[in-house]
Amino acid sequence: MSELLYIIPAICLLALGFTLWQSNWIVKQPAGDDRMQKIAGYVAKGAVSFLKAEYKVLAIFCGLAVIALAVLNAVEGEGNYLIILSFLTGAILSASAGYRGMRIATKANVRTAEAAKTSLARALDISFAGGTVMGISVAALGILGLSVLFLVYLSLYGDPANGGIARVLHVLAGFSLGAESIALFARVGGGIFTKAADVGADLVGKVEAGIPEDDPRNPAVIADNVGDNVGDVAGMGADLFGSYVATVIAAMVLGAGLSTDTTGVFGGLEGVVLPLFLAALGLVFSIAGSFLVKIKENGRVQRALNTGNIGSIVLTAIASYFLITALLPSRFEQGGHVYGPLQVFGAVVVGLAVGALVSLITEYYTSMNRGPVKRIVSQSTTTATNILGGLSTGMISTAAPVFVLAVGIIASFALAGLYGVAIAAAGMMATTGMQLAIDAFGPIADNAGGIAEMSGLPKEVRERTDVLDAVGNTTAAVGKGFAIASAALTSLALFAAFMESAGLVQIDISNAKVLAGLLIGAMIPFLFSALAIAAVGRAANAMVEEVRRQFKTIKGLLEGKPGVEPDYDTCIQISTRAAIRGMIVPGAIAIVIPVVVGFTPGLGAEVLGGLLAGVTVSGVLMAIFQSNAGGAWDNAKKSFEKGVQINGQTYYKGSEPHKAAVVGDTVGDPFKDTSGPSMNILIKLMSIVAVTVATAIASGA
Amino acid sequence: MSELLYIIPAICLLALGFTLWQSNWIVKQPAGDDRMQKIAGYVAKGAVSFLKAEYKVLAIFCGLAVIALAVLNAVEGEGNYLIILSFLTGAILSASAGYRGMRIATKANVRTAEAAKTSLARALDISFAGGTVMGISVAALGILGLSVLFLVYLSLYGDPANGGIARVLHVLAGFSLGAESIALFARVGGGIFTKAADVGADLVGKVEAGIPEDDPRNPAVIADNVGDNVGDVAGMGADLFGSYVATVIAAMVLGAGLSTDTTGVFGGLEGVVLPLFLAALGLVFSIAGSFLVKIKENGRVQRALNTGNIGSIVLTAIASYFLITALLPSRFEQGGHVYGPLQVFGAVVVGLAVGALVSLITEYYTSMNRGPVKRIVSQSTTTATNILGGLSTGMISTAAPVFVLAVGIIASFALAGLYGVAIAAAGMMATTGMQLAIDAFGPIADNAGGIAEMSGLPKEVRERTDVLDAVGNTTAAVGKGFAIASAALTSLALFAAFMESAGLVQIDISNAKVLAGLLIGAMIPFLFSALAIAAVGRAANAMVEEVRRQFKTIKGLLEGKPGVEPDYDTCIQISTRAAIRGMIVPGAIAIVIPVVVGFTPGLGAEVLGGLLAGVTVSGVLMAIFQSNAGGAWDNAKKSFEKGVQINGQTYYKGSEPHKAAVVGDTVGDPFKDTSGPSMNILIKLMSIVAVTVATAIASGA
Repeated sequence: MSELLYIIPAICLLALGFTLWQSNWIVKQPAGDDRMQKIAGYVAKGAVSFLKAEYKVLAIFCGLAVIALAVLNAVEGEGNYLIILSFLTGAILSASAGYRGMRIATKANVRTAEAAKTSLARALDISFAGGTVMGISVAALGILGLSVLFLVYLSLYGDPANGGIARVLHVLAGFSLGAESIALFARVGGGIFTKAADVGADLVGKVEAGIPEDDPRNPAVIADNVGDNVGDVAGMGADLFGSYVATVIAAMVLGAGLSTDTTGVFGGLEGVVLPLFLAALGLVFSIAGSFLVKIKENGRVQRALNTGNIGSIVLTAIASYFLITALLPSRFEQGGHVYGPLQVFGAVVVGLAVGALVSLITEYYTSMNRGPVKRIVSQSTTTATNILGGLSTGMISTAAPVFVLAVGIIASFALAGLYGVAIAAAGMMATTGMQLAIDAFGPIADNAGGIAEMSGLPKEVRERTDVLDAVGNTTAAVGKGFAIASAALTSLALFAAFMESAGLVQIDISNAKVLAGLLIGAMIPFLFSALAIAAVGRAANAMVEEVRRQFKTIKGLLEGKPGVEPDYDTCIQISTRAAIRGMIVPGAIAIVIPVVVGFTPGLGAEVLGGLLAGVTVSGVLMAIFQSNAGGAWDNAKKSFEKGVQINGQTYYKGSEPHKAAVVGDTVGDPFKDTSGPSMNILIKLMSIVAVTVATAIASGA
Repeated sequence: MSELLYIIPAICLLALGFTLWQSNWIVKQPAGDDRMQKIAGYVAKGAVSFLKAEYKVLAIFCGLAVIALAVLNAVEGEGNYLIILSFLTGAILSASAGYRGMRIATKANVRTAEAAKTSLARALDISFAGGTVMGISVAALGILGLSVLFLVYLSLYGDPANGGIARVLHVLAGFSLGAESIALFARVGGGIFTKAADVGADLVGKVEAGIPEDDPRNPAVIADNVGDNVGDVAGMGADLFGSYVATVIAAMVLGAGLSTDTTGVFGGLEGVVLPLFLAALGLVFSIAGSFLVKIKENGRVQRALNTGNIGSIVLTAIASYFLITALLPSRFEQGGHVYGPLQVFGAVVVGLAVGALVSLITEYYTSMNRGPVKRIVSQSTTTATNILGGLSTGMISTAAPVFVLAVGIIASFALAGLYGVAIAAAGMMATTGMQLAIDAFGPIADNAGGIAEMSGLPKEVRERTDVLDAVGNTTAAVGKGFAIASAALTSLALFAAFMESAGLVQIDISNAKVLAGLLIGAMIPFLFSALAIAAVGRAANAMVEEVRRQFKTIKGLLEGKPGVEPDYDTCIQISTRAAIRGMIVPGAIAIVIPVVVGFTPGLGAEVLGGLLAGVTVSGVLMAIFQSNAGGAWDNAKKSFEKGVQINGQTYYKGSEPHKAAVVGDTVGDPFKDTSGPSMNILIKLMSIVAVTVATAIASGA
């Protein structure tokens, strides 16, 4: 094996150094007055205490998982105990990525608010620096863990006498299993926390008591701001960490199936290492792109972010051409077909095109000035029609992305077989560092706005943070499009990896059992979403009751009497308990079902394959449906801020149609931030679990 | 071929005679005073004028379909032009069944109201007689058409030299194509009509103007009552006609694949004729069961209906044992396995068990006194949490039925292969006559209540019709469970029939193109539902505007000044236009997509198979999700009539939580009566279209 591989961890370490430099710079910025620091302190403390509670549960889960993996290994008798090391490394790095992101976010938020006192450009600098620390950390930790473990395992097992590359990748897959497990729990737990607080705060505060968002009199308001950090930052960090790793591993596994010339630099493993190099390339250009995100005072924030984002994508795409042609042999075989480097590069381009198109479609269905959101607004004369408008928009918005995905799958498969599909996904995810930086800066800006409001800072501060927040909403929607598209392609690649490990040559849906598996699989995303939404609904109800109770029993609170403070802690605890309780069953479903189906006599690998196909298609649809419905409702509500025309009359905030739109937005909250984004992780995690147990199933069958 | 087959049309003719006798009896009952007859006249006139408008469009569609079938035949060059005769017969009989049901319903409604002046028992007699005319007509016309065409085609082509039984069944399948096409348009069109009127009437009447349901001052109230007849009666009639026929044909097609001894009474066609005999048996016992539906004055309506329903099911099941053992040879072969009559009877029992279990589960999730609805009630403190409660209940309610279905598929397949699956569905659908009688009596009672209200009849009249209506709601939910379960099994059977006709031996989802097809297929139910819901939302909004306009511009209307009447016609026209416009695109999607995918070079039969599997699983899930969410919301709202406890306080109608529950019910209306029930037809229609074009695809490929 060539020493060239050491470049990859080296790049990761340099990238981590860059994040340290950035976070030092953030910490050095002025952190505002006492009141601001006090509030920011509440938020940071709440976030840390939630993550501690969450990680305690996750530690127990990891313990159980380690036992299960040990049993599985004992059954298999292949002695692949290092999969446990991979699992734990993946889990710990994923949790660390989330924690680190949350820590820097809770420092950047108050400093962004302080900077917004004087300058939009500086506020963007700080909030985006916070996002960058998060994004680059996630990507660097992911690739660092993967590449180091890969090098270690390669030196142990790489020799064909030791099981060769197949064994290396089997053991390495545990890394993704650990990362995706944590991602699922963190996404669902964080999602429940944030939406229970958000929905609860809005329902009593804005709707009933008539006090503005983020008003310090509202007892749920700190929980709401904590939620932004544990859900939208830490949850999303773990989510993208898992997605990123799963995509790279899936491509590596399929790369092992390429039959190439063993005299190359990497002794025939060119297809396996390509995804790692591609990721490293994307990391470098994500850092480069982050320097492009600058505005002049009162410049256009969206344009700056687009420049950074598109810059890093285009640079990565161009560089990948040279990487692929240099790395891959001029011809190689897969499944009886012969491919060349150009086809693989073509697959990268297909992946980027699919991601871009799905993002554009997402933007169309969720942004404020387009037909779909305008139609929801015009249907807001009553609450029921607003709700029906949002639901139907979400459902209809599945059509175009699914069509693009289907074409993308067929095209990338035609170019370079299943490896092509996996590489398309890997290309799409290569600039995860930048994607996540753009995603994570939104909640930081949102938090900064909350702190500004609660500290009673002048109106223009909030206006500046609102500009950043609004841009953040759009980029978040676009990021979701990317995430869904890549998850679909990755699942397909994992599906193929599963078949290979299980020794299946086909999965025939005309087999009654496989069809039954397909049906059960397709049901799981519905069940999973229901559990997540129900948890939010219950917790939000409890929050509403608690806030009402405080308004009733704490004298002078609602009147804003000086010195009277609400009991923020109880609200944080309600969200925490709901999140911890609510994440366990959905998480267990995702992990246990594939194992049960796979090992039940009479079912087995082919039925499990049907189940995975069902989960994947239905999960993709439910992801798009829920995310876009939620996004569209959100922006339908926001449209009222500038006034909207319905049947010739103009309505503003506070009007009846606006109230209807607020209800729609509240319904959409758990859709777009709890259940919707969990779908991506669900479909990948179930596939990875299946990959992990595939050989054991095959040997037992 | 044995003359025994003539028994089947003879039974159907006798059954039709029975319906004539029943409808004559209904017409002879007293029809109330002038005011009642005037209102009933408005409703009947509105229903006829809508159906005329609808049938005009359907006639054009049939013309286009005939051209398409002729072209298809010309391409195939097999000279199966009689498929056009089948198609037209199916379409015309389906439309007639709907029309006939609607006619009798608009006569029974006012007579039920008149009878309810004095007696609940007599009101039940009349409304259930109306339902029976409808139910028995649908079943008898379906089997009459099928059996007569079968006999004709058998005499023409039955000889192996003429193509034999395969050709007979291929041509006969056109009957189902015609029936299901009309069913889809009627269900969607009727569903949009009724819910646009219902939602519109409720939103302005109950919520805004604070006048009771069915108040004659509400301009949309006649349209609402027309909707019950064209949606819940005519639409449902066409729906069940199509389902019934599709199930029987699917079983016949698979029966042709049984290799039996050709010396039997039916010369080896025992497996083909069994489904017809089973249906005839169910028809006889549906009529017998209808005599069991009687109560003493103030007796329990639900128990009487259950007695009739369970009576006919049990009698049919017992009789089917003798039928199957007498008809089928003691052993026969399918796909290399050997089966006997007992296994086939076992499949009937599995089908009935699946239907019963799915119905019980449906009842659990939607009925007033169970956990799920109670939880929605307790979450009604705000509108948003009520909506989230309903959505999550609908999603979670998919789990148990899908599990039962999966086990049912595996069990019936294990018993008698794919023929077993088809026979399970056929057994479940055998008592369609009774099922539909029970389903159709609900809207008649609902209408009777409306007429009572609008005519200012004494309160106890409305109370009696409300008793019937409430029971009707429960039986409707149970009927939906049956319909979904049978649709899933039938689609699987049709799927197998498609594979046979297309010459496919497997549909491998690890093929990228098939997976792309699966993804596109799974998306279609989302798109279809969205279009239907959006049409209802738009039309309801237009209705709200119109009602508001009339309240504003027609002096004295809202005050109830004598002699001042609203303009009912404009509201009927709004619903009509919306329904006609809204049904075209969804219907076209269902019919055109399988043809396009099948004939596109590079896609073809296997990809179409993937598409069908996707449509089926996603359609089943969306059907259960939407129907149950709608049913649960409906009963959550109804719970407030007797008062509910939330957090220790009691709330009644008119309270804030009740208002939230009304919004939930309104959102659920199109779910449970427009998009939800269309899913069943959608999945079967797409499969039948695929079966129709399968041989052409196979020969072209």
